Amino acid sequence: MSSRPGPTVAVIGAGISGLTSTKMLGDYGIAHTTFEVSDRVGGNWAFRNPNNMSSAYRSLHIDTSKHQLSFRDFPMPEDYPDFPHHTQIKDYLDSYADAFGLRERIEFSNGVERAERRPDGGWDIHDQAGTTRRFDLLVVGNGHHWDPRYPDFPGEFSGEVIHSHYYVDPREPLDLHGKRILVVGLGNSAADIVVELSSKAYENEVVLSTRSGAWIVPKYFAGTPADKYYKTTPYLPLSWQRKFVQVMQPLTAGRPEDYGLPTPNHKFFEAHPTQSVELPLRLGSGDVTAKGDITRLDGSRVHFVDGTSAEFDVIIYATGYNITFPFFDPAFLSAPDNRIRLYKRMFKPGLDDLVFVGFAQSTPTLFPFVEAQSRLVAAYAAGLYRLPGVEEMERVIEADEQLYIGHMHDSARHTQQVDFFRYEHQLRTQELPEGRRRAATLGPAFA
Amino acid sequence: MSSRPGPTVAVIGAGISGLTSTKMLGDYGIAHTTFEVSDRVGGNWAFRNPNNMSSAYRSLHIDTSKHQLSFRDFPMPEDYPDFPHHTQIKDYLDSYADAFGLRERIEFSNGVERAERRPDGGWDIHDQAGTTRRFDLLVVGNGHHWDPRYPDFPGEFSGEVIHSHYYVDPREPLDLHGKRILVVGLGNSAADIVVELSSKAYENEVVLSTRSGAWIVPKYFAGTPADKYYKTTPYLPLSWQRKFVQVMQPLTAGRPEDYGLPTPNHKFFEAHPTQSVELPLRLGSGDVTAKGDITRLDGSRVHFVDGTSAEFDVIIYATGYNITFPFFDPAFLSAPDNRIRLYKRMFKPGLDDLVFVGFAQSTPTLFPFVEAQSRLVAAYAAGLYRLPGVEEMERVIEADEQLYIGHMHDSARHTQQVDFFRYEHQLRTQELPEGRRRAATLGPAFA
Repeated sequence: MSSRPGPTVAVIGAGISGLTSTKMLGDYGIAHTTFEVSDRVGGNWAFRNPNNMSSAYRSLHIDTSKHQLSFRDFPMPEDYPDFPHHTQIKDYLDSYADAFGLRERIEFSNGVERAERRPDGGWDIHDQAGTTRRFDLLVVGNGHHWDPRYPDFPGEFSGEVIHSHYYVDPREPLDLHGKRILVVGLGNSAADIVVELSSKAYENEVVLSTRSGAWIVPKYFAGTPADKYYKTTPYLPLSWQRKFVQVMQPLTAGRPEDYGLPTPNHKFFEAHPTQSVELPLRLGSGDVTAKGDITRLDGSRVHFVDGTSAEFDVIIYATGYNITFPFFDPAFLSAPDNRIRLYKRMFKPGLDDLVFVGFAQSTPTLFPFVEAQSRLVAAYAAGLYRLPGVEEMERVIEADEQLYIGHMHDSARHTQQVDFFRYEHQLRTQELPEGRRRAATLGPAFA
Repeated sequence: MSSRPGPTVAVIGAGISGLTSTKMLGDYGIAHTTFEVSDRVGGNWAFRNPNNMSSAYRSLHIDTSKHQLSFRDFPMPEDYPDFPHHTQIKDYLDSYADAFGLRERIEFSNGVERAERRPDGGWDIHDQAGTTRRFDLLVVGNGHHWDPRYPDFPGEFSGEVIHSHYYVDPREPLDLHGKRILVVGLGNSAADIVVELSSKAYENEVVLSTRSGAWIVPKYFAGTPADKYYKTTPYLPLSWQRKFVQVMQPLTAGRPEDYGLPTPNHKFFEAHPTQSVELPLRLGSGDVTAKGDITRLDGSRVHFVDGTSAEFDVIIYATGYNITFPFFDPAFLSAPDNRIRLYKRMFKPGLDDLVFVGFAQSTPTLFPFVEAQSRLVAAYAAGLYRLPGVEEMERVIEADEQLYIGHMHDSARHTQQVDFFRYEHQLRTQELPEGRRRAATLGPAFA
């Protein structure tokens, strides 16, 4: 592939972030190499991915409708259902890779063992094959839904324990039939797993424990995928728009207490809502019992914050994931408590040759979000975008945190929250043109 | 039990119709005997009922919320969920039987073999024990959800075939895992079975075939059981109220076509809607494919009205039930095509010593409906109610059919449809007092 003069770029990962970055770097004629531990593309969406980094379970469907999910330059097939199955998302990503000739630019079964920043800038990339190569720019797209995060309760549980990351179906890896099961968490995975295991056909007793509670929103409203109605405008304050949604909410799904769930410790849309049509029904049918936080584990018995306790055979922790960069020396860079301060959720001030893609909880959709980020990556590598100074970046990070997560009850837990429409609009209409003016003045970042 | 002078009454069945009739006859001090084939009460709600007449599957929950379902004189326990499981309905009926001392008035494991009307009125009841007893009045409460109704398509299907009546769960009576399954019908059982079997955990391919289509309504609306909003008033024409519901419908669940279902051959609320929160989601997730009517069976291949065809391993007919009276000589009384013309859906004009209870499709609730009917049964037996003349009864049957089903597309299929609120109000405020005046004039029906 013919390249324009410019930096050499290494991309870590061939999930959606790595794929879109690879595609955009190719579009802009930038020399690049993408490293992938697995033998295939798709990352999290490759069910049973041999790299063990997919958290997809057999029944997983995307919780974003195809209308919101599609890459803007590669729409999903017309015949796809509103909420495609993971096999269809994987097929879609395969066809994306084929359409743009991405596979030949990915080194499969060759992950990055170690990424070392050279004192004078640039990177030494040590790969699994044992080779070390030098690159000018590093794009990190290794995802944040693969390193299971466990809570730390006092005491010991004597039954079987798995994290939702390892859950496949009611038979694998555990035989979940006729069992007393406690699912911890109330995110989308927790809701899906609770619904699946509480089907009376499996004769399980299922209890759900949640510390923070959550607002449950339906996948459909009035016969239309509910997220088709979700559209913020950049021309009104986000806080006003949140207020409107909070006032309207009871008309759609009701309050969590209607179904026996604990009162959330936050207002509607202050934290990522959980999308489930089925969970309220299962709660309202008595198939699932909701509990608050766990206070203590004691053999097969689990104690809850309301003073009750019950015995269980199995605990499934659907408690989320750590943001982990195994290829970085932790002394160089890590994300303690999942916190990592990034300019536009992409750049760490002071490290001009490092870009992160996909490290956000983007509502309502992630795919076009990484697509927008990877466009900036390519523009940056091509010399069409320059970063502002470190002080300005720090100021913007503060302002963005205030905008996106300042209103949140416990903002430490939601450091990655971003409103897609607001973010994309700002990137397209402000960040890119201003960065292009800076590049025209200062010259490209990479010679 | 001390009895007032009056008729002796035989009751057939100890399901909800037989139980409420037994209870009310006891309340009014009428001598009665209830015959039940099974060793237990509950009829359809006794899962795995040894009389083989229960159509309950393992995961069955009532589709009416407990608020609408409760007998008016015996509310459901406070701690019951909104939509109780069949085990809870059975427990409720057991406690109803215990609270009113019904068991000692039921002859268990002794069904009625033959009920013969004597030429001069009254009944010879031949029971399974081989005894024949004479009764003055016969109450038929043998239900209409136990004799499977099969459609008749041209050709032969070579795979396995069951009726939903025999469906227990994905393992029983057939191993429904990794199979190509066609479910025929779009009533509540069809919807439940389609949802259960299309869970990706079972790795089935599920197709749903419907001839008439159906409107799908949610079990919840804005966090509240949807049927709490369903309340017709007797003070406005039912046709106006139907019109209002038809105009409002798109705001709740959308049109069937939104989910790929065929356009119903009737307007909303012209026929009994199907209650399912999950079916629209499964259709919108591509887990279930919807087809129109079947035109032909050919080995493992099934042809549909749209010209397509597909191969299947299993067909499940969720195509409803016949109204059958095995204890009557068909020449005396039967219900061809499920049609039986009854005054107030209880009395066959000309047969004053025969009453039917529970032979209705009562929207939105059946339990208080049979309770209201059994009150009339007891009043009748106690001499506190008399029927009008045969001609007047025929006139009212016509008018009621016009009111309840005249607006329906294919009224032959919906002969049993009744609006509960309208029916109960008429019975309480008009039928009972007028019948009491007739009884005061004419004297009791039974000496």
